[in-house]
Amino acid sequence: MPAGRSTSLLTDKYELTMLQAALRDGTAHRQSSFEVFSRRLPNERRYGVVAGTDRVLRAIQDFVFTEEQLAEMDFLDEDTVEYLRNYRFSGQVDGYREGELYFAYSPILTVRGTFAECVILETVILSIMNSDSAVASAASRMVTAADGRPIIEMGSRRTHEYAAVTAARAAYLAGFVATSNLEASHRYGIPASGTSAHAWTLLHVNEDGSPNEAAAFRSQIESQGVSTTLLVDTYDITEGVNTALDVAGPELGGVRIDSGDLGMITRRVRRQLDERGAYNTKIVVSSDLDEFTIAGLRGDPVDTYGVGTSVVTGSGSPTAGLVYKLVEVDGHPVVKRSSGKAMTGGTKTAVRAYRATGVAVEEIVHPFGTPTPDCGQLDSTDLTIPLMRDGKVVDGLPDLEASRAHLAEQIRTLPWEGLALSRDEPAIPTRFSGFPDPYGE
Amino acid sequence: MPAGRSTSLLTDKYELTMLQAALRDGTAHRQSSFEVFSRRLPNERRYGVVAGTDRVLRAIQDFVFTEEQLAEMDFLDEDTVEYLRNYRFSGQVDGYREGELYFAYSPILTVRGTFAECVILETVILSIMNSDSAVASAASRMVTAADGRPIIEMGSRRTHEYAAVTAARAAYLAGFVATSNLEASHRYGIPASGTSAHAWTLLHVNEDGSPNEAAAFRSQIESQGVSTTLLVDTYDITEGVNTALDVAGPELGGVRIDSGDLGMITRRVRRQLDERGAYNTKIVVSSDLDEFTIAGLRGDPVDTYGVGTSVVTGSGSPTAGLVYKLVEVDGHPVVKRSSGKAMTGGTKTAVRAYRATGVAVEEIVHPFGTPTPDCGQLDSTDLTIPLMRDGKVVDGLPDLEASRAHLAEQIRTLPWEGLALSRDEPAIPTRFSGFPDPYGE
Repeated sequence: MPAGRSTSLLTDKYELTMLQAALRDGTAHRQSSFEVFSRRLPNERRYGVVAGTDRVLRAIQDFVFTEEQLAEMDFLDEDTVEYLRNYRFSGQVDGYREGELYFAYSPILTVRGTFAECVILETVILSIMNSDSAVASAASRMVTAADGRPIIEMGSRRTHEYAAVTAARAAYLAGFVATSNLEASHRYGIPASGTSAHAWTLLHVNEDGSPNEAAAFRSQIESQGVSTTLLVDTYDITEGVNTALDVAGPELGGVRIDSGDLGMITRRVRRQLDERGAYNTKIVVSSDLDEFTIAGLRGDPVDTYGVGTSVVTGSGSPTAGLVYKLVEVDGHPVVKRSSGKAMTGGTKTAVRAYRATGVAVEEIVHPFGTPTPDCGQLDSTDLTIPLMRDGKVVDGLPDLEASRAHLAEQIRTLPWEGLALSRDEPAIPTRFSGFPDPYGE
Repeated sequence: MPAGRSTSLLTDKYELTMLQAALRDGTAHRQSSFEVFSRRLPNERRYGVVAGTDRVLRAIQDFVFTEEQLAEMDFLDEDTVEYLRNYRFSGQVDGYREGELYFAYSPILTVRGTFAECVILETVILSIMNSDSAVASAASRMVTAADGRPIIEMGSRRTHEYAAVTAARAAYLAGFVATSNLEASHRYGIPASGTSAHAWTLLHVNEDGSPNEAAAFRSQIESQGVSTTLLVDTYDITEGVNTALDVAGPELGGVRIDSGDLGMITRRVRRQLDERGAYNTKIVVSSDLDEFTIAGLRGDPVDTYGVGTSVVTGSGSPTAGLVYKLVEVDGHPVVKRSSGKAMTGGTKTAVRAYRATGVAVEEIVHPFGTPTPDCGQLDSTDLTIPLMRDGKVVDGLPDLEASRAHLAEQIRTLPWEGLALSRDEPAIPTRFSGFPDPYGE
C-alpha cells in the first residue's frame, strides 16, 4: 500500500497506549462491541442523515501500518509495534446503510471484534462519520427547503481542501445535483458544474482601465456556448442583464446573481428577462444561502441555488456529535455513568415501524441477535445490515447513487412536521425494547 | 510527482472554464493581482490569526496536472489541456507571515502573475487559509483564556480525517502545547499526547461483568508509568480518585475529568488529592470546552485543558471568511461594486504602527511599491513580506516554531481590550492610505 493511502495514523495517540496496556494485561483479546451513535441531534433538528459509511469501510481496510510509520512509534514497546505490523481488522461491522435517516441514540454503526482491533479504529471512524453526516444532514434540509429546485454545491473554498471533496459527496448523497469540485467529480463521479467569477468580468477592462462587461460575456459565450450562465452582478445588475441579453440573445442559458436582496432582485430580473423574450433563461442565485434563506426564496423566480459555506460547514453544526463507545465486553453490557451522558449498554440492532400509509412512527432499538419486537399493526423494516464480515466488506452494498435514491425515499416517510426547519423534538421517537432493567430507558 | 500529492484538482470547475475562455480571447496573459482578505472578522472577534501560509506555498508548488488527470478534462479544448500540462506557477506571492495577526481588509496574501496562472489557484489557496486561519483564530482566543495553563488539542474525531491533521497544526501555531493526532505529530513534529478513554475502564470488568476500575488503573500505570493521567469519571468521581490514589500513590501524574460541573468538581478533587498528599498530581479537564468555559475555569484548580470539538470547528466560525479577489489588471485597479461587498482595488501592502511602549495602534494599507506612509511619532513594521519569487519559495521563511513564537509576541502588542472574548470592533483599526479617490475608504 502506498503510504499516502494508509489511514493508520489518522488516530489519537491514546488508542495505541491503551492497546499496549491491553496487550500487557491480557484484556486486548476480550470480545468487544463499539457503537457509533449520537446523544442528540445538533441544534434540535428533526432528523440526521447517515453518511460516510462507505468511506469508513475503505478506511478500515486501509488501516495498515507501514514500516516507516512503525519506525516512529518510539513510545510503544516491541510487542505492540509487532501487533501493529500485523494488524488487519478481522471483525464484524453492522450498521445503518448510507443515506438512512437517524435520530438520537440510533445505533448507526457497531464494530465487533477483540478490544485491540476495535479500539484503534475510533478516531478515523468518527472523523469520517462526523464530518460526512454533518454535511449530509444539513444538505438534506436544504434540499427539502428548495422544494424540487436543483442545488449546486460550491463551498470547496470555505473548508479544508480534502474536506471539500467529501463534503461534495455528502451533499450529493443528500440530493444536491452537482458540485463545483473537480476532485469530487473525478473520485466519486458526481456531475461537476460552474459558472464564472467576478474576476472574469473584472479582467475585461478597456485599455484605459474602464470596465467592459460585454467583452467578458461575449468571450464566455464563445468559449462555453450560449447555454452558459453569466454572472451579472459585478457592476449594476439591471445593466448586467441587458448586456447579457444584448450579447447572447434570448437563448442565454442563465444569469447568476451573487449579492443583494435576492427575492426582490430575482423578481425584477425575471420580468426583465421575460420582457426581452428570454423566457427560458434561468436565474441562478448564490450568496451565503442556507436552508432558511432557500426556504425564504420559495415564492420567488429562482431556478437554481448555489450553496457554499453553509453546506460544507454543516449549517451551524460542523460536526454530527457522533461518539464511539464500548457497549459490551465478553457478552456483558457495559456503560459509563457520568452525568449528562446517558447511554444503554449492550450490542444493538434497530428497526423502524411504519403505518400502512408508509409514514414512519418510531424507531425501536433491541438487543443484537434477538427477534424483531412486535410492532402490532405496524410494518417494520430492519435498519441494521451487515457491512463487514471477518474483516471483509460484504458484497453488494449500495453505491452512492443507490444511497442517494434511498435517502430521497426515506425523506418521504417522515411525518410532515418532521421536515420543518425549526428546532424541536426528533421527527420520530426512539424506543428501547428488550434490554435488562438497569440499562433500559 | 505521485498523483496523491498533486493539488490541481482541489479546484472549482469554473476556474478552468474561465481559463479556456481567457486563452481564447487573449486576456489570459494580462498581468493580474489577486488578494486574499476578509471583509469582517467572524462573530465580531477582535483579531484573526493568519495560518496556512506555509501549506499554501507547498500547494502552489504541487499544483501540477498528471496525464491521468488531464485525460478526464473532456470539458476543455486542446489548447487549454496543453496549457495545464505545462502549468507551473511562475509568479510572485507576497503576504503576511504565518502567525501574524490580521483584521478586516488586511491584505494577507497577494498573488501576482498572468490571469491564467493566478486564477486557477483560487480554490486551493482559500480552502487552506480559510480552514487553518479559522482554527488558529479560535485556538488563540482559547490560549489567551487559559492564561498560561497548557491546552492539548484532542478534536480529531470531530472533523474530517485530514482536516484533523491541519487543525492540530493550526492549534499548535496558536499556542496549544500538544495534539492527540499521530499524523500531525509525524508530519509537523508537534508533541503528541493522550490519556485514556472510558472504554479502557469499561473494558476491565470482573468475570460476572461487574466493573473493576482498579484493574484498569493498575494496568495503565504498569504500561505507562505512574506519571500517566488516569480518567476518573467513568463511574463515581470521588471513588475514582480514591481508587486512582490507592493504585498509584501520591506520585500519580494526573487525573482527567471529562463530564459534569467542572468548576465544582475540580475544587473537590483538588482537596481530595491534597488530603492524600498528592500535591503534584495534576487535574486535566475536557468535555466540550471552548474559550468561554476555559475562561470560566480560571479561578479553579485546573492544570491542563483538553479541547476538542470547539477548536477544530473554529468555535462557532468554522471558516475564516477569506476571499480571493482580482484587484488589479495590467496596472489598473479593478473593483466589484455589488452591495454589501465593498473593497478597494489595486495591489496592496501593509504596515502596523506601534507606540513606543510596543502597543499596536493601527494597521495602514497602502499601494504596493509605494513608500511606507508617515506614521508620525509611531514605530511601524512591514507586515507584507515576499513569499514566492518567479514561482520559487523565498529562502529562509519562518518555520512552524518561529511562527508560533511570533504569534505569542504579537498577542502581547494588542491593546488589552483587544484580548476580550466578547463581540466588538477589531482590536485596532485598518486605514487605507495613498489610494486614488474612487477606491479610497
